[in-house]
Amino acid sequence: MCTEECLKQAGRAGAFSRRAALAGAAAIAASAVMAEPAQAGPKGGYGRGVRDLTHPLTTTFPAFAPGEEPSRRTYVTIEENGYYMQEWRILEHYGTHVDAPGHFIPGGRTSTELAAAELVTPAAVIDIAARAARDPDTTVTVADIKGYERRYGRIPRDAAVLMYSGWAAKAGDPDAYRGTDAGGTLHFPGFSAEATEWLLRHRRIRSLGVDTLSIDPGVSSTFDTHLILTGADRYGVENLAGLDRLPRSGATIIVGLIPYQEGSGGQARVFATW
Amino acid sequence: MCTEECLKQAGRAGAFSRRAALAGAAAIAASAVMAEPAQAGPKGGYGRGVRDLTHPLTTTFPAFAPGEEPSRRTYVTIEENGYYMQEWRILEHYGTHVDAPGHFIPGGRTSTELAAAELVTPAAVIDIAARAARDPDTTVTVADIKGYERRYGRIPRDAAVLMYSGWAAKAGDPDAYRGTDAGGTLHFPGFSAEATEWLLRHRRIRSLGVDTLSIDPGVSSTFDTHLILTGADRYGVENLAGLDRLPRSGATIIVGLIPYQEGSGGQARVFATW
Ligand SMILES: [Zn+2]
Ligand SMILES: [Zn+2]
Repeated sequence: MCTEECLKQAGRAGAFSRRAALAGAAAIAASAVMAEPAQAGPKGGYGRGVRDLTHPLTTTFPAFAPGEEPSRRTYVTIEENGYYMQEWRILEHYGTHVDAPGHFIPGGRTSTELAAAELVTPAAVIDIAARAARDPDTTVTVADIKGYERRYGRIPRDAAVLMYSGWAAKAGDPDAYRGTDAGGTLHFPGFSAEATEWLLRHRRIRSLGVDTLSIDPGVSSTFDTHLILTGADRYGVENLAGLDRLPRSGATIIVGLIPYQEGSGGQARVFATW
Repeated sequence: MCTEECLKQAGRAGAFSRRAALAGAAAIAASAVMAEPAQAGPKGGYGRGVRDLTHPLTTTFPAFAPGEEPSRRTYVTIEENGYYMQEWRILEHYGTHVDAPGHFIPGGRTSTELAAAELVTPAAVIDIAARAARDPDTTVTVADIKGYERRYGRIPRDAAVLMYSGWAAKAGDPDAYRGTDAGGTLHFPGFSAEATEWLLRHRRIRSLGVDTLSIDPGVSSTFDTHLILTGADRYGVENLAGLDRLPRSGATIIVGLIPYQEGSGGQARVFATW
């Protein structure tokens, strides 16, 4: 859509008063067209559940480092310009987002190089919430994976393996979400390096996803899981929401990564369907 | 992931040298895990085609107004910081993006208020490419819709109705994509107000999508289609790609809108599956 600057250039500034009038008229005319939620699910004709796994992108969501939250400003308003639009200043790794291989690996693939087929994959949800509630430094282990497979069956090739730790519920409290202790060390769960290697070698997974700030546990200072995963040309998804209500197996995850030019990853809208 | 600032705060700057060493080691260790494309399609176990309808988000994609392109900067690098990340400054209506009702309607719903179920809907593709090649000011008409339905069947409720005009092929040339004439007026196709009203009243569609800069044709100075659609609490999708290779009916579109706080819309990764 057009901005104030473009309207000046196109010599159409006079259109705004008519547009302001039209806005009211259109709202009235359209009132006969009731706004209703789309009919998802079996009765709706496209027959699938859809779950949102994305946190709203606010300026108060916990950044990995305090102070690295995005900023936003109102760029134009309906009152003055005929329509409303914001501008954002944001790091690629804020909120629900992807880590591309190039985030850690020199020459690794960047955001535009992850193909659509890699971003739509089967999902396996590993639930460690009970243990994580007692020990925020816990990790997903090879034993957890094997326990999952005994219950839910073999993790399919190209799967997204998702850690459900219960952390999404803490997102309203940045200190609790980061788990920062008096010495500045972070405490939240992640994937162990061993489980990551096992999943790559024996299940040829496509990605790892977590409901915390990092696929490595917060206490990690070496980021082994990041290095192993991105070193294998795979990607991670961080700060997922809604994993509590996702089937443990059988869902498809859709990772709507914004294809940033030379992106190290970036914001993503993540859905699951089943 | 952690940034330089957070590592300072956490007192872990020493980790970086080890990480740099690990990066090499992990790349070697992981070389046994071959990177292969994910197995989409019937042989892949999740049985569906996936099409990307999104333009790469570059700083050279045509903005509606020249000069309103985003900017990006390298925030940290693997060489100096252990990992790579960019920062973006961007308007909500650049690149492949959504127009939320609040873009034009005071009090209209904003980006976080569009539910997942509204963003995953059946897609109907109206092909006006041959006519648009002769007349860039052409619009999708009620006759086009009726002609579509005679051939492909009734447009389902809650559908995304997508205009395929052939414009995505011009995206590498901003002047051609905008179609700016000597007087500064833009020329590209869009939806007519009449077709928009007809689709809302008689088919109760969910959204309109276009492969141009605006759901209104470029010559519009009154933005009637925007006002009618957003006035009905529906949303638009602009700057779509890949519509040439989408089935005209039977696909599902997945609009991965970034849920910007109080967003007037915003960047979206858009996929289709069938
Ligand atoms: Zn727009
Ligand atoms: Zn990250």
